[in-house]
This record gives sequence, structure tokens and C-alpha cells, in this order.
Amino acid sequence: MKPVPPASPGLTLAEVDTPALIIDLDAFERNLRRLADAVAGSGVRVRAHAKTHKCAEIARRQVAAGAIGVCCQKVAEAEAMVEGGIADVLISNEIVGAKKLARLAALARHARIGVCVDDARNLLDLREAAARAGVTLDVYVEIDVGARRCGVAPGEAALALAREAARGANLRFAGLQAYHGPAQHLRGNDERRAEIERAAAAVRQTRSLIEASGIACETVTGAGSGSFMFEVGSGAWDEIQPGSYIFMDADYARNEWSAPLPRFEHALFVLAGVMSRPGPDRAVLDAGLKASSVDAGLPTLWQRPGIACVRLSDEHAVLEISRGAAPPALGEKILLVPGHCDPTVNLHDYYVCMRGGLVEALWPIEARGAIS
Amino acid sequence: MKPVPPASPGLTLAEVDTPALIIDLDAFERNLRRLADAVAGSGVRVRAHAKTHKCAEIARRQVAAGAIGVCCQKVAEAEAMVEGGIADVLISNEIVGAKKLARLAALARHARIGVCVDDARNLLDLREAAARAGVTLDVYVEIDVGARRCGVAPGEAALALAREAARGANLRFAGLQAYHGPAQHLRGNDERRAEIERAAAAVRQTRSLIEASGIACETVTGAGSGSFMFEVGSGAWDEIQPGSYIFMDADYARNEWSAPLPRFEHALFVLAGVMSRPGPDRAVLDAGLKASSVDAGLPTLWQRPGIACVRLSDEHAVLEISRGAAPPALGEKILLVPGHCDPTVNLHDYYVCMRGGLVEALWPIEARGAIS
Repeated sequence: MKPVPPASPGLTLAEVDTPALIIDLDAFERNLRRLADAVAGSGVRVRAHAKTHKCAEIARRQVAAGAIGVCCQKVAEAEAMVEGGIADVLISNEIVGAKKLARLAALARHARIGVCVDDARNLLDLREAAARAGVTLDVYVEIDVGARRCGVAPGEAALALAREAARGANLRFAGLQAYHGPAQHLRGNDERRAEIERAAAAVRQTRSLIEASGIACETVTGAGSGSFMFEVGSGAWDEIQPGSYIFMDADYARNEWSAPLPRFEHALFVLAGVMSRPGPDRAVLDAGLKASSVDAGLPTLWQRPGIACVRLSDEHAVLEISRGAAPPALGEKILLVPGHCDPTVNLHDYYVCMRGGLVEALWPIEARGAIS
Repeated sequence: MKPVPPASPGLTLAEVDTPALIIDLDAFERNLRRLADAVAGSGVRVRAHAKTHKCAEIARRQVAAGAIGVCCQKVAEAEAMVEGGIADVLISNEIVGAKKLARLAALARHARIGVCVDDARNLLDLREAAARAGVTLDVYVEIDVGARRCGVAPGEAALALAREAARGANLRFAGLQAYHGPAQHLRGNDERRAEIERAAAAVRQTRSLIEASGIACETVTGAGSGSFMFEVGSGAWDEIQPGSYIFMDADYARNEWSAPLPRFEHALFVLAGVMSRPGPDRAVLDAGLKASSVDAGLPTLWQRPGIACVRLSDEHAVLEISRGAAPPALGEKILLVPGHCDPTVNLHDYYVCMRGGLVEALWPIEARGAIS
């Protein structure tokens, strides 16, 4: 079945079918500018993370706002971005397996493509795929700077891979991927700063080691929306990879936001309709786990004081209404701020973009489901 | 972008691209038979819940195994099922709003369509939509038998709605929807039995009240995979709505499964590839929150003793490997049992159906994303 858009341009919010994924265009555009302003003059490049939005239109707007390109987590995401006209894509992740590597290499005929490695055998496979396709891929050695996910240890292990990457044809050693995921969600600014300072020490040591062995280490890339100004301030990163800043979500909103980080606004919402009013203290919305991801907590209600979302099931959100709060009517439409924007976006096929109370545009989420 | 299937018939499991949603067809078919055998002779009908699988091929197989039809949670799901040839669909949920009601009524030109109500105003809207389309809809009054979600209170409130539903044209009062969701996941058999006994008392009292007022209450429908034999045994239900029984998931596997409930097998898996081996005690898979839902807990590993999934991020699953466990190699493919099957299915576009180690079929998940 071809997905049916939940709205068309010119409708009011109340006329949008529910559930729907909503962008407040004014807030979204302010977020784009806030990031650009925050890094202006630092010499650090922005490579926005497209895993957050999965939408070529948004990627093009990020590039128009100064990003040098995007990063993706998957080959299929990168395919959607290149198809959508993005000329510079880094897969900030390891890609394993002959089929995926062949697709990755094929993409490099149409755009500048980078990819991460943390394994010598994978590096050989990558070189072979690039040679077969007759292309050159940028290779970043991923180092584990505290996330305990992928990546080799900083120091000698990274140097060994960098040496391998730097020798021979079809691959170009481009630098280091150093991303500290868990640090993004530490609540206090000082905690995040301290983690990034530790990561920066590992980055500097590894870069020095590589450069001391005569290999250029052109770019260190990493950082996310919760920490990027600490990476910028450290001087150890050349490029940042924020994704969520365009939208914000309920999880990021629980962080402390203070200088040097700019405060981003909620620009992404799930619009839901009240489908049941079983009692004075309860309402049920028509948006559940299949419309809003709960991996980072429940969605929160937007500008509805005294009403809380207390439970999601597949297709329902149960709301508790405090005494004295304005109760929502059956059929009324309510905006939710998703707990975690990235997996929530992946549940939808379109963004409904609002401005001044009216639908201005529908943007297809081309890389929805692009997990391969 | 049109979704690309992760496999084609005849491939081995190792050749399937990752991540992919896998059905073990033998286990799936045994689950179908187990349910049919369990209720055989009881006089209780099976109306399988299609929100679990969202796939017309599976719905047709459920009907072939004895189900009278399916239930859905959303109009868009029902549209996919009717389009796929299912002649009897109950939306086990309230449908609110003129657009959705018009689509619902239009469906009743092609199939028998039922829907739930818990509000008098919604009942009027429903009747108007049915009249406009020139159809008759089956209406079930939903009663809250302990789930504290939608539904009116058992007793007088249900009678009042039944009276309204039973008078006038274009609607037919068909009975009661009585589903106790939270009871499905109480771990002990006795706890689930006790909850369903309480629910059964509410059902009996409400049905008696309605029938005493001269209104036929033809069908009481409800029940899920975790409790259905208690509903069957109570004699208070005419129809059961199990969904997850075809697949099982890690959450349901934590239930006690003993008589009278048959033990279902895991038949649904997420196939993931090892994309990083950063240390002897850690591996990282290429399937994360966008491939396997975590609302009911992390996925578990299938037949890989000593290896546990400890963390998911958007596109990664981090595995901890115990000392002495057989470590997976880079590129190796691993089967995960999803924490919760329904929202996991909704992340994929195809089932890759395996038998005897080979891909036998690809089934499209037509109602993936059908949330409206």
C-alpha cells in the first residue's frame, strides 16, 4: 500500500488526520540558525546527522544553512541522501558484508563518500569493493572515546588501522571518528563537559601518534546535539555531527541547556486525536508505540498544563488529567513532544510542515525504514 | 524510495541482508494449529488480531486455519485487510473524526465491518457516516474490564450505549468488546486467571442487563494470547482476539505457560549482522531501535548461550559475551527474539519466510505504518 499523506497544504492543524508527524517550520528554521551561529568563527565544520530526519529536503536545508554535507548510519540512508542531491556523505558507522560494501562503493560514483572502520579485515573488504567499483572512499578510523560501542581503542590500535588505510589505492585515510553517544544525555552541563574533555585527550593523543608516524590526520569528526560546543571549544575536532538539534525531543529537553550550548526549541511533534474520554481524569489518544518511540521515555504534552501521558500501548496513549486542568474534548487534537526524535521519525512516511497555523508543505521521509 | 526486500527465495539465512524480519514457517504453522486445537470444541470463535502482523497473507492463513476473520486497531489496517481479501473485520477500537468514519463506512461496501464505541456522540457520528455510505456497521460497546484505557464502565453505562446502538438504521448492535490488555502480561497463570474471572463477572452482569432490557447481545469479543483459554473456559466470551500467538516474543516468553494455555513457539526473529568486535567480551550488531522495538524490554538472543543483548541505540545492539561462550565473528548473522512483536513488525516492510534453512517466500507487510 502506498502511504497516504495525513494532510495537504492549506489545511489547519485541526484538519490534519491523526496521528501525524508535525514540524513547526519557524522553530525548525530558528534551530538551524542557532547551530550555525553557535559554531560561526570557530573553524569547525558542521556535518549534520541525517539519521535524525531521514529526509532529503531537510538535508538540503542544512547544507543551505552551512553544513558541508551529512552523515548517515546506514548505506540505505546514504543512498536516499545522494539521490536527494547531497554531494558529501559520511557513514559514521562500520559497514560489513559484500552486498552492502558494493552498494556503498557504487554511491561514490555520484558523491563524496566516507565510512568508518574499526577492523583490519573489514578495511581489506572495503578496499576491494572500492577497487571493483573504480572509486576512492574516505576512511575514518573510529576510536572508542567512552561510548563502549564500536571503535578501536585510542592510541596504537588506531595508528595500526590508520597505517593500513593510508597505504594503497582506492581508500584515502581521512581521519578519526570520535563520537561519545552516552555523554549527550548526561543531564548536567559539567558532566557532559568533563566527559568530552576526557574524550578530547584521547583524540589528541591518537592524532599526535598518527601524525608523528608521518600520516596526515586531516579530520576528526564526531559530537552530537548535547555536547557539540564542548568539542568545538576543545579544539580537538574539525567537524561536528549534530542531528537532534533541528527538532529537540523530550529526552534532550531534560538536559541542562546553558552556555556554551544554545537552547534549541521543540520543532517536532506527534499530532494525536482524543479517541476516548472514559472519565473526568482520563483521556485516550490515537497515537501509541507505532506513532511515538518510548525508548527514551514517554512523550510529553505540548502546552497542556495539568495533563500527563502516563502509558502507551500499540495504538493508544493514556492521559491523566489533573483536577483543575482544562479537559480535552473527544476529537480534539493534541500535540505530543516525542521522547526520542530519531526512532519516532522512522515510524512515519511524511512530515506535515506547519507555519502560521496552516500546512505549508509535506516532506516525504525517503529514508524511513532504510535500515540496511 | 520503494523498499527493497532483504532477500529473495532460495537464499540461505546467511545470505539474507541485515537487518531483516524472519518468520520460521514451521514454527508459525505449528502456532496456528496449536491455537485452533486449543479452542476446538469450545464453540468459541477465533478472530485473530491483525495489528500483530499487518500482513494480508498471514490473515488469509489464519482464516484458512479456522478464524472467522480478523480484528484491527485502525481504519488503515482494516483497509489493507479488506484489500487483501478478508471478508470480516472488526476494528476493536473507537474511531473518531469525520474523515476516518467516512473511510470506515466505505469499507463496509466490501466486507462485514464492526467497530467499537464508548461514547454516545461518537455513536451518532458513526450512524451518520454509515447512512451516508448506505451501509450497516456492526457496533460493539466497549466495556472497561480492568485495562483502564478506553471503554465505558460495565453495567448501566454499557446498557445506555447498547440501547442507542440498537435503535435506528445503519447500525446493528452486535455485542460487547471486553479486552483486558494488562492481564496478558501478568507473569503467573493464576494471576491472569484471577483477572479474567473478575472481567468475566463484569461481562456476565452487563450482558444480563442488556438482554433483560430486551436487546439481543449476540457476541462478546476480547481476549489475547496471554489469557484466551481463561476467557474460553469462563463461558462468558463468544469470540477471542489473540494476535501474538503466531509469533511469540521475549515479553510473552517471560509469562508462565501452562495448561489450559498451549505453549507457543518463537516464530519471529530479527536477523542482525555482527558489524564490530571491539573486544573479547563485546560484539555489536547492525540492528537497533529502528529494527526491534524495546518498549517491552530488550531483544534476547536465539540459541546463543552466554551472549546477552545489553543495550540498543538507533542502529546498534551491543552484546556482552560471557567467558567461555562461543564468540560471534565479524559478519556473522545472529537471530534476535524481539521484546515486543507488534511494534517490531511495524518497523519492517517484508517478512523473510524461512523453511529448511532456505528463504521460501517474502510477504509484504502491507499495513506497516497504517496508523490512521
